[in-house]
Amino acid sequence: MEGQRLAQQVKFIIEIDKLKQIHRQTYLTDASRHENSVEHSWHLAIMCMLLLEHANHPDLDLGRVIRMVLVHDIVEIDAGDTFIYDDAGNGSKAEREQAAADRLFSILPADQGNMLRDLWEEFESAQTPEARFANSLDRFQPMLHNIVTHGKSWQEHGIRKSQVVAKNQVMETGSNRLWDYISTSLSDAVSKGHLLD
Amino acid sequence: MEGQRLAQQVKFIIEIDKLKQIHRQTYLTDASRHENSVEHSWHLAIMCMLLLEHANHPDLDLGRVIRMVLVHDIVEIDAGDTFIYDDAGNGSKAEREQAAADRLFSILPADQGNMLRDLWEEFESAQTPEARFANSLDRFQPMLHNIVTHGKSWQEHGIRKSQVVAKNQVMETGSNRLWDYISTSLSDAVSKGHLLD
Repeated sequence: MEGQRLAQQVKFIIEIDKLKQIHRQTYLTDASRHENSVEHSWHLAIMCMLLLEHANHPDLDLGRVIRMVLVHDIVEIDAGDTFIYDDAGNGSKAEREQAAADRLFSILPADQGNMLRDLWEEFESAQTPEARFANSLDRFQPMLHNIVTHGKSWQEHGIRKSQVVAKNQVMETGSNRLWDYISTSLSDAVSKGHLLD
Repeated sequence: MEGQRLAQQVKFIIEIDKLKQIHRQTYLTDASRHENSVEHSWHLAIMCMLLLEHANHPDLDLGRVIRMVLVHDIVEIDAGDTFIYDDAGNGSKAEREQAAADRLFSILPADQGNMLRDLWEEFESAQTPEARFANSLDRFQPMLHNIVTHGKSWQEHGIRKSQVVAKNQVMETGSNRLWDYISTSLSDAVSKGHLLD
């Protein structure tokens, strides 16, 4: 019984290695290649630790925010990464990700599958203070990479500042402070010609 | 003042993006390429969540174990990854990593730099139950990848089972259960010709 439980856990741990091969539109900060969803998730987890003080809500459960960002992209193993500015892809995203969650989390013992699914659903629903802050970081990080790479991904996709604001201003619900920081940086990117006005 | 603090945090967040380009000897489970230290760190963090019940110590602080594995390789940005079977490299590892910690953690506001340095030093010292379990997972994960890839990295470096045992049996101080599991898998790898006896 204990052996079977560990076997299920190991099977899942091997399965999620595939997330290292799911590529995002975001470039590394040296613009040498796209990053993958595991790299993005790790980066968010460190950001949770360092930027917690900028959350709107004064008393977040840091441990839950970290666990949430660590698991929030696992469904992309089956569903793929959906670019935030791809409206067609975002239309079918929820259905694809639900099917992925059904398959992937059922590899685990039921209690642990439910634990990860709850974290993922909390992140997706973005209703709790923890989920709102996690979602804010999930938007902050790719914008930061765009700013550092002089708008490389924005320019490749012909993205305008108005689109960036429309898709990301929701960050304010998790952190006014981080939105203010990015908002100033977006104006700066426009003035430097890295982002279309 | 608050602006300066956030500027330091963002500078560090951008700096640690370099860890995504530090490659390890471990292959992804499909053997298509080596993994990097960020991918390894994320994988360990998820393993903390799922394998905690197999720790020797019954009452670990899961949050601290997760934070520890998330930051444990950041010093490799300057010091590089040192292969566990590279005895010469391991001789100079501590000095290289101390210098890396001095430079990297000082980018942050002092309180946060100290927080990350404390986590890293706790991991390296391997004296607390949390650090012992974190170190056990740090050994378990690459052996698991070797087993899944039919000993690809072991074979490339001509590693024998006795070397694997000598370097990794310390895992027992964090988790007897996981060491038993791996120990059986090592014998199995030998019988299949994936690991030299």
